[in-house]
Amino acid sequence: MRAEILSIGTELLVGSTLNTNARFLAKKLAEHAIDVYRQVTVGDNVERIAEAFRTACGRSDLVVSSGGLGPTEDDATARGLSRFLGEPLELHAPTLRAVRERLRKKRYRMTPLIARQCRIVRGAKAVFQNRWGTAPGVLYERLTPFGKKWLLLLPGPPRELEPMFASAFPGILKRMALPRQAFVMKSLRLACVPESQVAQKITDLLRWKPPLTVGIYAKPGEVELKIMAKAKNKKSAAAMAAKAEKILRRRLKDGIYGEDEETLSSAVGALLRRSRRTLGAAESCTGGLLGHLLTETPGASDYFLGGVVAYDDGVKISALGVRRESLRRHGAVSRRVSREMAEGVRRRLGADLGVGITGIAGPSGGTKTKPAGLVYLSIADASGVKCRQRRFFGKRSDVKMQAAKYALEWLRREWLGSPNKARRR
Amino acid sequence: MRAEILSIGTELLVGSTLNTNARFLAKKLAEHAIDVYRQVTVGDNVERIAEAFRTACGRSDLVVSSGGLGPTEDDATARGLSRFLGEPLELHAPTLRAVRERLRKKRYRMTPLIARQCRIVRGAKAVFQNRWGTAPGVLYERLTPFGKKWLLLLPGPPRELEPMFASAFPGILKRMALPRQAFVMKSLRLACVPESQVAQKITDLLRWKPPLTVGIYAKPGEVELKIMAKAKNKKSAAAMAAKAEKILRRRLKDGIYGEDEETLSSAVGALLRRSRRTLGAAESCTGGLLGHLLTETPGASDYFLGGVVAYDDGVKISALGVRRESLRRHGAVSRRVSREMAEGVRRRLGADLGVGITGIAGPSGGTKTKPAGLVYLSIADASGVKCRQRRFFGKRSDVKMQAAKYALEWLRREWLGSPNKARRR
Repeated sequence: MRAEILSIGTELLVGSTLNTNARFLAKKLAEHAIDVYRQVTVGDNVERIAEAFRTACGRSDLVVSSGGLGPTEDDATARGLSRFLGEPLELHAPTLRAVRERLRKKRYRMTPLIARQCRIVRGAKAVFQNRWGTAPGVLYERLTPFGKKWLLLLPGPPRELEPMFASAFPGILKRMALPRQAFVMKSLRLACVPESQVAQKITDLLRWKPPLTVGIYAKPGEVELKIMAKAKNKKSAAAMAAKAEKILRRRLKDGIYGEDEETLSSAVGALLRRSRRTLGAAESCTGGLLGHLLTETPGASDYFLGGVVAYDDGVKISALGVRRESLRRHGAVSRRVSREMAEGVRRRLGADLGVGITGIAGPSGGTKTKPAGLVYLSIADASGVKCRQRRFFGKRSDVKMQAAKYALEWLRREWLGSPNKARRR
Repeated sequence: MRAEILSIGTELLVGSTLNTNARFLAKKLAEHAIDVYRQVTVGDNVERIAEAFRTACGRSDLVVSSGGLGPTEDDATARGLSRFLGEPLELHAPTLRAVRERLRKKRYRMTPLIARQCRIVRGAKAVFQNRWGTAPGVLYERLTPFGKKWLLLLPGPPRELEPMFASAFPGILKRMALPRQAFVMKSLRLACVPESQVAQKITDLLRWKPPLTVGIYAKPGEVELKIMAKAKNKKSAAAMAAKAEKILRRRLKDGIYGEDEETLSSAVGALLRRSRRTLGAAESCTGGLLGHLLTETPGASDYFLGGVVAYDDGVKISALGVRRESLRRHGAVSRRVSREMAEGVRRRLGADLGVGITGIAGPSGGTKTKPAGLVYLSIADASGVKCRQRRFFGKRSDVKMQAAKYALEWLRREWLGSPNKARRR
């Protein structure tokens, strides 16, 4: 089965909004072994929406649209589909009742605008009530000039689209009665390494063709390797993917920090928890980003004690015990101060490990000897402290992110043992 | 002039990567009064890339593609264009020299893979060297079966595409000699308020039609109002936009925190700087996010002294002076502890203002009386401390972000005076 994703909304065409729906839908369809060859975005224009549905039906079996179902004049998806299918819009009474009931419970008033959202194109195969908003999702199964097609209309706000898709799609899949085929996707993740360096080690795998492929994708400060395997059933697909994973792990060794949705900070967190060690962070140029990343993982309080954001020199002295003399002689951005920050936060928080980061996030503040992007990172434990100097490039936020990720990756590889090694035990 | 954005990459079709390039390009083209009616995404497939260029040329004057110029087999954009234009690929000697020179300076080795990126479709009108990576951007001006068309090929990584576009596009615009038309786009931003509440106050403006329109877009924790004005020249367009802005400001008053690329934290920073006050942050559930947001703005060291990430109760006591008794009687997530955190960080850092945030980021850790999403926020100054209790919804990262933004918006509106008021002075 082949699907096309149709994103509707002028806010996407003028770049006001980032199209996260296309990505969400693409991922979900891929996970169900449904091929997506094209994504198309059009604005809130009845004519172009109708044409986009027509074109999509000409080359795909399933069209999933998002957006344009809202209450305002702008929202033209239903009218566009009506034009393509040649069917009128009708008030859908069960939806009106459901919306009314939902608003009553929340003590909101029903408005004519909201009632408008309950008008849908005649002949729906199924209507999905929107428990996260008001506009319903609608499924059509139609004989078009191009054969039998499925059309799924979903609301635009991701907080409505995502749960609605998750709850409605399993039932839709059953109705579509697809030939049995399974798709397994697995990601392996690396941090703080250039894409080209990873690619060089696996050029042969990157040339593999379906049903078993390996893709490489660069993310800020990270590289993702994606294994995709397709087979008659889940078991065979998983076995194929496992074969690829084994080779990748052999080639890239402990450069791989994690899998799938795992993040670098969750990988570091898992290693800290396993080794029963605690961490404290002293951050200057990263401004709290390292703490923020570490605390994105639920349960981070098991190993992350906290930290000091020592942006001001006075705070470096009072809250971390950095010596005034060190600041005067070496400057706030120096090996010495970074070391004293790591030692200070470790001691003051009573943590097993202390991280100290000081640098010049830029774009201003750099000098010839200490350019923007220069960062000193230190890690201290009971046996002492080590410091590294790095130069990062890019915007202020890039420099901050690279510095925070570098600290995490260094912790993972040299202070906590790699997850590969840990797994082998 | 009408343009089409063509995103190339299988990683987009399977949802591995979020398409930020389409958004970036859409925004930039809109700012130059170039209409974008469609965005299309295809995978790394020569046939479909060729077809996508053909279709795009059939309905647009300018096609801007991103991606597929990299070094691997996957990267098929040049081959797809070659098929569409019927022109062969050739090694572009100046590019090879530039890449070689760039690698030499960085002490990287030239590889056959990298050399591959220097092969481009014959007949380029201009080649843009990639100072942020290796694959060059290429511009073609071609007489196609559909008339004269411009094709601009850009590399996929946003860190290469964005600066390359910014440096190359002004020159391209001159070459294209567009009819004079100006487009002015201005955003007004609000935080911590639901979209529907904002929309209700400006329903009439949201119905305006071109050449002067107002759009409303919800972002996480924020609402953006976008004014778009089109006219014969910049001055007239700006005057139209100013008219709309005046009405919006009158209706929404100091709910508006900033304009265009201004962020809530930069708005708060500007107010702190203007009032010559300093800030310290004591963060528990936000884990450093508030500090991270504040330090995204260059020069934040002028007003942000730093903070304490007091994730662990011991750190709350030792680094902030929270009383053991308060933790025992009220719990870490309580009005009392939040107040003591704000007062403690203010006192210990010697800041004018102290912020204390403690809560349950979730998804676990909540109880019936203290559910996930419950957050206590306090702000302290010389005259005392105030505390607010809020309940946020969504994922862990949503709760953290909403709590951090709430603290900023509260600071802005009630502690620092709104920027509107400040501007009026």
